[in-house]
Amino acid sequence: MLCETILSGNRLSLAKLITGIENGDEEALAALDALFPHSGRAHLIGVTGAPGTGKSSLVNQLARLYRHPPQGQLARRVGIVAVDPTSPFSGGALLGDRVRMRELSGDAGVFIRSMASRGTLGGLAATTSQVVAAMDAAGFEVILIETVGVGQSEIDIANLAHSVVVVEAPGLGDDIQAGKAGILEVADILVVNKADLSGAEHTHRILEQMLDIAYSRDDSSGSPAQNSWRPPVIKTIANQGTGIDDLFASLASHLTFIKNNDEWIKRSHQRLEIEFENLLRERVVYNWVNGAAKEKYHNLKQRVFNREISPVRAVEELLTLES
Amino acid sequence: MLCETILSGNRLSLAKLITGIENGDEEALAALDALFPHSGRAHLIGVTGAPGTGKSSLVNQLARLYRHPPQGQLARRVGIVAVDPTSPFSGGALLGDRVRMRELSGDAGVFIRSMASRGTLGGLAATTSQVVAAMDAAGFEVILIETVGVGQSEIDIANLAHSVVVVEAPGLGDDIQAGKAGILEVADILVVNKADLSGAEHTHRILEQMLDIAYSRDDSSGSPAQNSWRPPVIKTIANQGTGIDDLFASLASHLTFIKNNDEWIKRSHQRLEIEFENLLRERVVYNWVNGAAKEKYHNLKQRVFNREISPVRAVEELLTLES
Repeated sequence: MLCETILSGNRLSLAKLITGIENGDEEALAALDALFPHSGRAHLIGVTGAPGTGKSSLVNQLARLYRHPPQGQLARRVGIVAVDPTSPFSGGALLGDRVRMRELSGDAGVFIRSMASRGTLGGLAATTSQVVAAMDAAGFEVILIETVGVGQSEIDIANLAHSVVVVEAPGLGDDIQAGKAGILEVADILVVNKADLSGAEHTHRILEQMLDIAYSRDDSSGSPAQNSWRPPVIKTIANQGTGIDDLFASLASHLTFIKNNDEWIKRSHQRLEIEFENLLRERVVYNWVNGAAKEKYHNLKQRVFNREISPVRAVEELLTLES
Repeated sequence: MLCETILSGNRLSLAKLITGIENGDEEALAALDALFPHSGRAHLIGVTGAPGTGKSSLVNQLARLYRHPPQGQLARRVGIVAVDPTSPFSGGALLGDRVRMRELSGDAGVFIRSMASRGTLGGLAATTSQVVAAMDAAGFEVILIETVGVGQSEIDIANLAHSVVVVEAPGLGDDIQAGKAGILEVADILVVNKADLSGAEHTHRILEQMLDIAYSRDDSSGSPAQNSWRPPVIKTIANQGTGIDDLFASLASHLTFIKNNDEWIKRSHQRLEIEFENLLRERVVYNWVNGAAKEKYHNLKQRVFNREISPVRAVEELLTLES
């Protein structure tokens, strides 16, 4: 059965399962169900930021460091999931893939998968979560979830991670891009990549100012100091490998922090609850928009547009359909 | 019947209906259903911003100006809905209410209602939309929807409006607050209130810079110039009544703009669709979390937490429940 070969470390089976998950195949969902109890061990690291911040190079460098850690540390098996909510097809992501393949090729300890937006973002987040669970069960100990920052989407996907790295690059645009998405609220670690570019200092300062404000707020809401983690702001030059060791060390500290504060289990449950409820929302609405009640749904929506019936009543009519 | 007395302009009936809507009474929903065809005429104006930006004073000043417009313009009947997603009770909002009552008291052309968060934000947005529809049907020609800026919430509520006014006040914190919420993406008009405070120029400049970036992006995505509205940034000192006439004029221009670009109907439909689908999502999940399937829902969630069953399978088990 697919599940056993995956647990035994068969890469081809894992790749097949993930394709099945993306297509929503029954067999894949059954295998995932069997694998699910074996998941929950991996350190899930979300890496997000605006296009052009150099996320992919950073992720590749991180992966390499987890594979070849500093003296005295264990090498980790690394999964990489590259999610691009912006592209309906995985073209862009696949390109990134080919680059990665060259850089990390032939390492059985690295598994890379690209995903593109199919249907709703909620759906993408859910599918991503399933792919992550599959890699997790397959024994990959660190899973890097890379997403292009485009607002709500990467917050959804950041919710999948234990540790969220937000990548900035010099330039006001990126600062705002990051700000816009409310992404600072989900950041555990901030990275100013391309730190050799002019404006890096400015970006670094703005991020620290944002954090000062955010954390003065937190204090006023009385969160105990020993339970609070202030995101460090780390400068990197990914394509030169500069600063990656600092990021690597910060991720280790953050992992220790969340394990010592019940944050690990809290985030895991929170993640699963969000996934559960999002799936529920998406599936239910999907059933109505595309399923048996399709006609009824669209007719009711049109009647709402014509103000013949109120949205509340329209929803009630839909709900009575199936009870 | 409640509906007729409301159409005839009975304030007490309207107040009663709104309370019924907030409580989800059957009678209220029936009345709302009957009123709904009479809605869709009012100019819905969302006013949002971080706490302390002076939204309430601004809204009061705007209301007064709509009641007593410049020479040669018609006075409008004004509804005010103050939404506070942050407070579980309407305490804060009610306080604002009492202040308003003094300022706008005895004017039958003004109807004020405060709402606080009950249950989910989606739920709050939906209820707010219903209250707005009721005021709209009751013949209030301009409806000011005031919300405290706290991220996603005011975006949900901004989606209810034809024209969205984002209020800033001097200070980096507020700039970020605005940025964080992705609120600039929904702003039709930006206001720098408390323009007499130091830092107002800085805030004004940052907002213009943000707009420069946002609109250079838009152009690259090839939106025709005559269809594009660049939000003006207006300085006001609400508690002195300064700049309100500029805001008033901008709102008139924006109303003309959306009516000339099919934006009016587009936004109305978009609003109704969002309301429809949010109601659907909320109601369905609510039914599971609190309804007959309550036990089953929570058991399944716990089994997901224990990794005995995958979220996908858990949702399937829920869905098979009722089919």
